[in-house]
Amino acid sequence: MLTLYCFGPGANSLKPLLALHEKGLAFVRRQLNPAVFEHHEEWFKKINSNGQVPALDHDGKIITESTVICEYLEDVYPDAPRLRPDDPYRRAQMRIWTKWVDEYFCWCVSTIGWERMVSRMARQYTDEEFESYVKRIPLYEQQVKWRRARAGFPKELLEEEMRKIAFSVRKLEARLEESPWLAGPDYTLADICNFAIANGMERGFPDLVNEKDTPRLIEWIRRINERPAARKMFAETPRDRIERPAQSAARSD
Amino acid sequence: MLTLYCFGPGANSLKPLLALHEKGLAFVRRQLNPAVFEHHEEWFKKINSNGQVPALDHDGKIITESTVICEYLEDVYPDAPRLRPDDPYRRAQMRIWTKWVDEYFCWCVSTIGWERMVSRMARQYTDEEFESYVKRIPLYEQQVKWRRARAGFPKELLEEEMRKIAFSVRKLEARLEESPWLAGPDYTLADICNFAIANGMERGFPDLVNEKDTPRLIEWIRRINERPAARKMFAETPRDRIERPAQSAARSD
Repeated sequence: MLTLYCFGPGANSLKPLLALHEKGLAFVRRQLNPAVFEHHEEWFKKINSNGQVPALDHDGKIITESTVICEYLEDVYPDAPRLRPDDPYRRAQMRIWTKWVDEYFCWCVSTIGWERMVSRMARQYTDEEFESYVKRIPLYEQQVKWRRARAGFPKELLEEEMRKIAFSVRKLEARLEESPWLAGPDYTLADICNFAIANGMERGFPDLVNEKDTPRLIEWIRRINERPAARKMFAETPRDRIERPAQSAARSD
Repeated sequence: MLTLYCFGPGANSLKPLLALHEKGLAFVRRQLNPAVFEHHEEWFKKINSNGQVPALDHDGKIITESTVICEYLEDVYPDAPRLRPDDPYRRAQMRIWTKWVDEYFCWCVSTIGWERMVSRMARQYTDEEFESYVKRIPLYEQQVKWRRARAGFPKELLEEEMRKIAFSVRKLEARLEESPWLAGPDYTLADICNFAIANGMERGFPDLVNEKDTPRLIEWIRRINERPAARKMFAETPRDRIERPAQSAARSD
């Protein structure tokens, strides 16, 4: 049995969600609520000690890290529709693109997303409530990120991240000018993992992602959204809510 | 035919160097000279437009990114001694460790290495020579890193990197307390990629890596150094020299 612990259909959670739908695999979705820091609760830290989603439970074995989960699904279910090229050279090209998402593209977009959205979530709580949540976060870097989200990220950092986003968008557009999919002629995990970050940028970054400047990127985003698996995923998977639930208060586990 | 463009046997270049030796594959080593920024020369940028080593030429196909090259060798030569577990769960654990090197461990150690070693290299040149080298670097972030190496890295950054190194060392020691190799019972790319960064830390970071505090880490480093493939690699592959060659001057391509 496959159980995916995840947030809504965006960013790192989207990667295995879409891969599972594309492969037509039956799975249980256990969707956590980021607005009450559910991924930092003790029950979930027993599943992933880093307190991060997504995490996949496959018959009791836990696999973490979104990109690693996607490759795991290819290793275990090679006969379901393939999302990884058989040719080693193409496969390497795919991995260069999934690696680039994890090391560069996801981080700059994430900071701006946190500044715009997660900051509002972090400011809904009293200082005491907020600190009681933060102290449960296992990774030091994530504690720093949450505190920055509440205080506001430094202006220089936001400017640097916007520079990286502009570079990333140009890089994707240039690649899609020469190839229908990022790793070559076939739709692969390279597309899924980049789509996880790029989807919605037409609304979030309209000065950078638009019909005039990035027509191929926009068409590629649309093409993935129109795939049956993506439609099904978005229809079935509720988006995250960032509002504090009416009855919530910081809890100690 | 396999040709590996690389620096000496350390950091990212060590990963495919050791993997090739472990697998017993014949290859041509084309070792570049970092002290004259050879990896930023036009001839090499035609091989890897990012101007980074290692890069593998396999019958004319170029594969970049050290970890991707290692997985490529497993995909192409599965019957040579295997450095990747067949079991998908173990393989996922291996990838979590190789990914962690690329996203965390290599960066903090690299900054300190650059502060100590590359800074000396960067200061051997006149301002004019140095800028003529830097302007050839394709990646903006690498230009920033070289300028920081010459000027000296900010103190706060060095302190933060040392904190991350201490965390990394504890993490490796804890894992090696419970398992002989990082991904489980077998020696894999997880070990090779972490060894690429950890080898030499007993000398470089004696307060953190020593017989008292990290006996398992030290024993694991020794165990890998004693492997026939590692001995052969170190014997055959000259270490990088950071001295400016006698006749060198900044060149324009």
